[in-house]
Amino acid sequence: MLNQATAPDVPLDRVFRALSDPSRIVMVDRLSRGPASVSELARPLEISLPAVVQHLQVLEDSGLVSSEKVGRVRTCRIETAALRPVEDWISERRQAWERRLDRLGEYLAENPD
Amino acid sequence: MLNQATAPDVPLDRVFRALSDPSRIVMVDRLSRGPASVSELARPLEISLPAVVQHLQVLEDSGLVSSEKVGRVRTCRIETAALRPVEDWISERRQAWERRLDRLGEYLAENPD
Repeated sequence: MLNQATAPDVPLDRVFRALSDPSRIVMVDRLSRGPASVSELARPLEISLPAVVQHLQVLEDSGLVSSEKVGRVRTCRIETAALRPVEDWISERRQAWERRLDRLGEYLAENPD
Repeated sequence: MLNQATAPDVPLDRVFRALSDPSRIVMVDRLSRGPASVSELARPLEISLPAVVQHLQVLEDSGLVSSEKVGRVRTCRIETAALRPVEDWISERRQAWERRLDRLGEYLAENPD
């Protein structure tokens, strides 16, 4: 149960798209602090419950969130394995550029003219 | 010129939206390896030049890319300051959840019944 899941095979752009909406950002933020029911997810959002369910579907399709229905309550949880590839992708692009700037800085320091 | 720019005040969801398209992901990836002209950005993409220019506009609006026109050539560069807030946001959410799992694991280990 506590094992790290492997990253699902979801294209990066779909994960970024799942995070491209303010309501879905609030939902992921809430779930990073623990599982929540759909109505708990809806509480801070000024949108209808059907709209929350639609957003939840986008998050589930991206692999960022999973949910399980027990009785009448659907409990949602974050799947951090889906966050890892986007975190790595961003970090690698940022570092590639910063290394390039560092090399340029060294070059300029050694070649002051 | 080599100073780190401060992060622009762009909402997270707009940066995520800028990255939610496969062509724009390829463009950002290319720019992480160095500045490029618009036609260099277009080369690996199977889309029209006007479409590339539209994607570039979305990237510029998000703060992820800047461009400068000298003569007839527009040179684009990545702005990693805009990547930092999304990288931090993802990393913090992932770590919050993983800390929670760790605490749960410790609790279960200490309370085996």
